[in-house]
Amino acid sequence: MDNITVQKYGGTSVATTERIMSVANRIIGLKRQGKNIVVVVSAMGDTTDDLTDLAHQITPDPPSRELDMLLATGEQVSIALLAMAIKSLGQDVISLTASQVGIYTDNIHTRARITDIKTERIIKELEEGRIVIVAGFQGIDEYNDVTTLGRGGSDTTTVALASVLQADMCEILTDVDGVYTADPRIVSNAAKLDNITYEEMLELATLGAKVLHPRSVELAWQYGVPLMVRSSFNESEGTVVTNMDLENGRVVSGVACDKDVTKASVYGIPSKAGTAYKIFSRLSESGIDVDMIVQNMTREGKTDISFTIAKEDLSEAGSILKAVGGQLDCEGIEFENGLAKVSIVGAGMINHPGVAAKMFEALYGLGINIELITTSDIKVSCLVAEDMAEAAVTKLHGVFDLQNI
Amino acid sequence: MDNITVQKYGGTSVATTERIMSVANRIIGLKRQGKNIVVVVSAMGDTTDDLTDLAHQITPDPPSRELDMLLATGEQVSIALLAMAIKSLGQDVISLTASQVGIYTDNIHTRARITDIKTERIIKELEEGRIVIVAGFQGIDEYNDVTTLGRGGSDTTTVALASVLQADMCEILTDVDGVYTADPRIVSNAAKLDNITYEEMLELATLGAKVLHPRSVELAWQYGVPLMVRSSFNESEGTVVTNMDLENGRVVSGVACDKDVTKASVYGIPSKAGTAYKIFSRLSESGIDVDMIVQNMTREGKTDISFTIAKEDLSEAGSILKAVGGQLDCEGIEFENGLAKVSIVGAGMINHPGVAAKMFEALYGLGINIELITTSDIKVSCLVAEDMAEAAVTKLHGVFDLQNI
Repeated sequence: MDNITVQKYGGTSVATTERIMSVANRIIGLKRQGKNIVVVVSAMGDTTDDLTDLAHQITPDPPSRELDMLLATGEQVSIALLAMAIKSLGQDVISLTASQVGIYTDNIHTRARITDIKTERIIKELEEGRIVIVAGFQGIDEYNDVTTLGRGGSDTTTVALASVLQADMCEILTDVDGVYTADPRIVSNAAKLDNITYEEMLELATLGAKVLHPRSVELAWQYGVPLMVRSSFNESEGTVVTNMDLENGRVVSGVACDKDVTKASVYGIPSKAGTAYKIFSRLSESGIDVDMIVQNMTREGKTDISFTIAKEDLSEAGSILKAVGGQLDCEGIEFENGLAKVSIVGAGMINHPGVAAKMFEALYGLGINIELITTSDIKVSCLVAEDMAEAAVTKLHGVFDLQNI
Repeated sequence: MDNITVQKYGGTSVATTERIMSVANRIIGLKRQGKNIVVVVSAMGDTTDDLTDLAHQITPDPPSRELDMLLATGEQVSIALLAMAIKSLGQDVISLTASQVGIYTDNIHTRARITDIKTERIIKELEEGRIVIVAGFQGIDEYNDVTTLGRGGSDTTTVALASVLQADMCEILTDVDGVYTADPRIVSNAAKLDNITYEEMLELATLGAKVLHPRSVELAWQYGVPLMVRSSFNESEGTVVTNMDLENGRVVSGVACDKDVTKASVYGIPSKAGTAYKIFSRLSESGIDVDMIVQNMTREGKTDISFTIAKEDLSEAGSILKAVGGQLDCEGIEFENGLAKVSIVGAGMINHPGVAAKMFEALYGLGINIELITTSDIKVSCLVAEDMAEAAVTKLHGVFDLQNI
């Protein structure tokens, strides 16, 4: 089927019945342009948090299968209400749960990964002239048990649907106008980007820009899904994420700041092959994402390894490192908070040496001590004191002239 | 599989997380007696009403398919929380939606009827030693669309499950201790019945005793499911509903009162065959339940038909009667509110003539005018002024000596 647009509306966009009516009007406007529309919705406002609280009133450690059963109701409420709103405006519409669409996942509850999506039901409903509203964030496993996709789940549902439906456009409607050169709450003259590459977006997403979840960007990149991030509160054009010409002249596209970091260090490991493997495989098995890995040999011929993790993983990572550290006969394990990761991202960087040096110079100019540095082809990240992070972002934004992008 | 007990906990029994924990403890106690347990739960407290309100904020007339999609989330929340509670007490358990069990219905949304229930998944989970928690009130149709069963839906789910699983006992746990000879809020010395026949229970259910929905009683009767109504707040024995020996000496078992009645009358219909058929088939097609039908010939040779309906069906019945009445060339249609139906029920009545006369005498003694009378083998119902209904119930309870049953 041609001419399919997949849209996603986040929780704030459907937080009240008034907002739902306004979203319904917007969707109908698009339908009148002759498009076949599939809409993915998240749970209303804080519903997911409220349901999680309810579960924690029962038990501090709810079984993940039952937590998924509970949380999936949030999106089911949204799709039903949005479908009612669209129908009340005279447009034929149908809501579908993940089970009804056939969004299959593995059975890792609370952070399942999509394995397959059936398109028959959606295509059939579109062919009958209906707008199709799909519950984001949820799936079913091979036993027909309800799963949820974890953080960024609705974005992932949306991009995956756009991919299997071969949609012309995948729009993520959110509470911001698009992707900015920096967080406008930190840098007042931050500029909205008209376009950005998947790779840049992925780095920005990973680095805490929070507009799009990295999983969904990765998926869009992998399957070449054209993505647009735009506001659900106005009609202005957002930011298009595509495979742009890398020679577009922009060296740095944005500055990102992530305050959700804890630095972990394992010191004085007797040097042996497999040290890093042993540490990071165990963390990964527990679903702990690790970032900014730095490994060094000390003068005594021992190995020091440092890396960053999300704050919420601190206690679990602590027990894992204690166990692994013991096996590796390390001299010490340390965790450090009060840090933030500041990064510059740009696909043009690859052809412009000296960008990293310019960043270090700027941070030095602010008297900022850099705890860790990691680099990739299109980004440089520095771990700095949290209380200096915003000053660093503002300074870098100016140094790379991003307000005039 | 042998030794299966099916229990149902209503909305008040799971209204808070504390109540859910207490229900979980009770279920585990039963499990320790070696039983295979299937539990049906309703939505927490006022959830269904709250969701309906949300729908009405969107549109005064929500499409029924989407309303079912919305309402079904209420039970899904309950089953997940109850399963978490049971699991947190160390007992293996699994929650299942109607879709996961395979509770199939027709596609009449908001008042679907169960057509088939698969037992494979439930039996498999029971065989693995789990308690199985099933969402009441909901089903799926042949297209995997979510349906709800309408009033008394969770009771119906429970009895239907007990039937297909050939359960030893089907317990309806509610906020009252059992079935009483009259509503204890009206008659202070009303007595709890230890047992009652399906037929009596069906009449009492239909007549507004509200303990059990008539659909579920009908189903239990039809399939011989042994039913017990008891309190979820204490362990006292409730009322067993079975095929008792009819010669148990009780003439009248209870007095019921239903205030949810509107009297409808169609006057002066030229007498022709098919009049009643035309009126009641049209009402029935619209799902309007009709009760207490009285038809009479006037001295002029015309037909008057009166009957009662639920108050909420008034406006829909009005339009139907207007259309049908026009075709039948009737002289007038009237609706009357402010009425209540008072009934005496008892399987022993069939062998004791004069019971009806004793009832009419008691009402006459209170100066009550009777608007309509209908009788069956085991009940007599009188439509009286609503403000006299409670006095009538109390008087009849005494006249038939029910406090000493």
